[in-house]
Amino acid sequence: MRFLEDFQLREIETIPGYALSESEIIAFGRAWDPQPMHTDPDAAQALPFGGLVASGLHLLAIAVRQLVSQPGHVAVIAGLSVDEVRFVRPARPGDTLRVTRECLEARPSESKPDRGIVRNRITILNQHDDIVLSYVDTLLVWRRAAAATCEPAHARTEA
Amino acid sequence: MRFLEDFQLREIETIPGYALSESEIIAFGRAWDPQPMHTDPDAAQALPFGGLVASGLHLLAIAVRQLVSQPGHVAVIAGLSVDEVRFVRPARPGDTLRVTRECLEARPSESKPDRGIVRNRITILNQHDDIVLSYVDTLLVWRRAAAATCEPAHARTEA
Repeated sequence: MRFLEDFQLREIETIPGYALSESEIIAFGRAWDPQPMHTDPDAAQALPFGGLVASGLHLLAIAVRQLVSQPGHVAVIAGLSVDEVRFVRPARPGDTLRVTRECLEARPSESKPDRGIVRNRITILNQHDDIVLSYVDTLLVWRRAAAATCEPAHARTEA
Repeated sequence: MRFLEDFQLREIETIPGYALSESEIIAFGRAWDPQPMHTDPDAAQALPFGGLVASGLHLLAIAVRQLVSQPGHVAVIAGLSVDEVRFVRPARPGDTLRVTRECLEARPSESKPDRGIVRNRITILNQHDDIVLSYVDTLLVWRRAAAATCEPAHARTEA
């Protein structure tokens, strides 16, 4: 498990190699964002992007799943907020996406000593190193001391 | 189709009656946000929410699908951004959710006369009228004149 103390300011995690297929774009679009630009390859040709593009919600979902599925699960109490979601460029069938996480802040709670706030900037880039999606995620997480009372909490963050 | 001119400042749209089931929470969690609080009813009992709760991403997806599935599709060119996503309260199995949209801004583009910007505050409330989720969505949409040149564009918004 990764606790508050395991997040370090400015650390960057990179998860490479997500192959985005046409069938996945269409399946997600049909399920959650049924608009022709995400679900109908023929109709999408005549639309502003000139072809099928992934739903922005789908890109968010890819980022969440890639981050959550990493080894060393984060000791999340709750997601608090998401800010500054920017759909910078479209993601298309055949793109290879990578997800990066930069830790912007990791600080103990001022009111509850067993928990803290972690703020990360999440970015999806494509195979051309173009930014596709960017957002800031804020989580409430346990401090290590809350989970293992035999082990003192070491505040390794500078926040 | 709903064009820029069809959005009116401060108008509120309400989509009631979304029944959130345990099986849907688990299925979405397994697919996109595999954490025990979303996927494992037994393990979730011992976690801070004291039971299964919907992924925040799932709540966003419900809001998007409910809005996109309304009659009178919005003439979306692209989603530009999402801001101020706040996971205010948990959503649990058996909750009945309603989605509201308040138009915060609808204005023509300053550089391209065929399109405009629509900004909406989207909120999900539960059966107790508690806010569950809130965010601000910004869309690039066509103006009516771009679609029907026989009909002049009437700027009915005050923005």
